Amino acid sequence: MGAESDVSYLTTDKVAVMGAAGAVGSNLVQALISTGTANTVAMYDPYGPGLEGAAEEIYHCAFPDAQVTWTTDAGEALDGAAYVLSSGGAPRREGMTREDLLRGNAEIAAQLGQDISQHAPDAKLVVIVFNPADVTGLVTLVHSGLPPQRVTTLAALDSTRLQTRLAQHFGVAQHRIVGCRTYGGHGQEMALYKGAIQIDGVPLNDIVNAGSQANGVGLDADGWQEIREHVLGGGARVIKLRGRSSFQSPAHLTAMMVRAACGGEPFEWPCGAFVTGEPYTNVMMAMPTTLGPGGVAWRLPEGDADERAELDAAYVHLQHLRDETIGMGLIPSVADWGSVNRHLAG
Amino acid sequence: MGAESDVSYLTTDKVAVMGAAGAVGSNLVQALISTGTANTVAMYDPYGPGLEGAAEEIYHCAFPDAQVTWTTDAGEALDGAAYVLSSGGAPRREGMTREDLLRGNAEIAAQLGQDISQHAPDAKLVVIVFNPADVTGLVTLVHSGLPPQRVTTLAALDSTRLQTRLAQHFGVAQHRIVGCRTYGGHGQEMALYKGAIQIDGVPLNDIVNAGSQANGVGLDADGWQEIREHVLGGGARVIKLRGRSSFQSPAHLTAMMVRAACGGEPFEWPCGAFVTGEPYTNVMMAMPTTLGPGGVAWRLPEGDADERAELDAAYVHLQHLRDETIGMGLIPSVADWGSVNRHLAG
Repeated sequence: MGAESDVSYLTTDKVAVMGAAGAVGSNLVQALISTGTANTVAMYDPYGPGLEGAAEEIYHCAFPDAQVTWTTDAGEALDGAAYVLSSGGAPRREGMTREDLLRGNAEIAAQLGQDISQHAPDAKLVVIVFNPADVTGLVTLVHSGLPPQRVTTLAALDSTRLQTRLAQHFGVAQHRIVGCRTYGGHGQEMALYKGAIQIDGVPLNDIVNAGSQANGVGLDADGWQEIREHVLGGGARVIKLRGRSSFQSPAHLTAMMVRAACGGEPFEWPCGAFVTGEPYTNVMMAMPTTLGPGGVAWRLPEGDADERAELDAAYVHLQHLRDETIGMGLIPSVADWGSVNRHLAG
Repeated sequence: MGAESDVSYLTTDKVAVMGAAGAVGSNLVQALISTGTANTVAMYDPYGPGLEGAAEEIYHCAFPDAQVTWTTDAGEALDGAAYVLSSGGAPRREGMTREDLLRGNAEIAAQLGQDISQHAPDAKLVVIVFNPADVTGLVTLVHSGLPPQRVTTLAALDSTRLQTRLAQHFGVAQHRIVGCRTYGGHGQEMALYKGAIQIDGVPLNDIVNAGSQANGVGLDADGWQEIREHVLGGGARVIKLRGRSSFQSPAHLTAMMVRAACGGEPFEWPCGAFVTGEPYTNVMMAMPTTLGPGGVAWRLPEGDADERAELDAAYVHLQHLRDETIGMGLIPSVADWGSVNRHLAG
């Protein structure tokens, strides 16, 4: 049986999963262990009975060599954690925008950052999964005291939803759609970079702009706009179909981010990164990134003028959300970040 | 990114997951693919919107080289399937026993068996996950026309719950508890074979009967009885704690059964097997089993007189459930099984 076999995990470092009684968190624990990514997992949630029930389910899986604990004490879960993964915000309900969640979840993020600062100051990677992730990730970073490359967000879902929709439109297997990438914010503020997209080897731009076909199917500008709208509504659509917000895909993709950070297979989807310099500075946004043992490294994406304009607009929006959060008193003014997190000084 | 990497799966044969909109089924699809077990999955559920939502979540995971379809047509899902995994019964609610579900789920099982007979007559393995699994598995087998070694049930959960509870009692890592096995029925009808159980290398029988200790902890007969009761109530306890019946552990363990059937790591927990001969015949029950490409092979367990008495009692109970199902007209009398499934003749 599993419990008696030889198995190996990419890391035996402690992984703290915050919000582990929830749908994303409990799935994430299962995903981390079952994919052989991590075996040492501390499950935290303020809701004790649900947490114990979720932990029991993990125990009943009888994962070989797993070391899984659960606690309603965030500090205990975080103590010495190398990886901190948090889906522990309030979930988005049907009709809510990510921004509706801003204040409540930014408060949770601020507390998480402070807890990380106190209990997990050597964390190798923090992944924030709860919305609006660009802001909650930033707030966590500021308060955590960690170097910016150690804090990221789940930012892949818009891209995988785009890949999904293109596969459906062209009737080709999903893995034959490559290069789908959205950057900047999420939802209405995503910047859709389509220059690298190929369908069965045919550049999407050739299809939309020059009438080429893939698998005998074309796509005109209106059709492309419809696909774009479909992707923008991807999260809301899952809620409508399923009666609950996405949980399997965020959990799985977060586990894959941890794999990459542990030196496993590369994670080539966009991740959230704290950007500084020109033209974007002092926000967290989805960018072309590389995840590895050193954390998250970002670079500017290559796109055309329209795509850059979308990214610029996303940046303006993210600055606005950041400043709103500053106005709420949840993080200091940018000039004062260094007083909370020395890695963000000047 | 995942979609562009080289990956391999244990099987590329078609796997039909019935009840794929449900909590067990949707988790099972994710588990099959994310563990590299299977990449070709047909998701079936009568509830279309929930199914589409569950399928979208799987697509949004962007599993490399996955071929996942969804349909509300059971025949389409089963057509040519090599593996058929069904959690598609009505779930057990708080306060319900497995037996309360008998009629409704046995009807579903009869239809599934007929559908398999028509659409997947060459199935390599059918795993029935919905309760009461000993009966639904038997009903499916009779109607499927498959050889008995090709139909099994998830029967591991009582054993993994026992392992969990012993780990908690003795304060040792779960994988240091080996040999936990329950056979026969489930819940009140499980036969708990404890002769092979060791805690950190110490036989449980030495602890309970001779006052030995493991990790400095003992266990007397009353304490052992409490653990046994705890295991018997394991499923109800998850429902109470979590507000829903177990779904992660049944899904994960079912995926591990498929792995073993595909030639992957052995699955050494008990599985349901159709038994014939002496002393047990013409029921499906949890037994010591080996799963492999040839299906499920069973043998009689070795136990003491008390354990054999428990297994005898489970057998009597399972005969009763079988006969109740016959009385409902959902399967023919035992003597007539051969007219429906030639592999069960005489």
